[in-house]
Amino acid sequence: MNKNDVLVEFGNKIRQLRDEKGWSQEELAFKSGFHRTYIGMIERAERNISLKNIARMALAFDVKIEELFINTNKI
Amino acid sequence: MNKNDVLVEFGNKIRQLRDEKGWSQEELAFKSGFHRTYIGMIERAERNISLKNIARMALAFDVKIEELFINTNKI
Repeated sequence: MNKNDVLVEFGNKIRQLRDEKGWSQEELAFKSGFHRTYIGMIERAERNISLKNIARMALAFDVKIEELFINTNKI
Repeated sequence: MNKNDVLVEFGNKIRQLRDEKGWSQEELAFKSGFHRTYIGMIERAERNISLKNIARMALAFDVKIEELFINTNKI
């Protein structure tokens, strides 16, 4: 996997989980404690998120960290 | 999960995978392209590793990223 692909896949996963919850970026921002613009940058793969912030994102969605890396859209 | 616990768990997992392969920190450094001192800092939870570098670590071990977060030592 290309090192940048991982940011794209992660961003897509965050957007997918957010959509499944029916949350706006503002709502995820509120639940995670991140700024709304940071959520947008993560979803657009514009930020190389750190492990601590990945854990914080998992907590906001109430999922295990590994679940953020399982791409259920892949065949 | 505490945000710092995730660094400890990740560091332990890296050490565990490295031990399973029978690799020294130097060998993992060579395979991953990281400096040996960076490997040590990750294993001791002294660095907040980024997603790109997590992907690079998974590649070095030839595992999926999610496998770096599955703690097989937990009961």
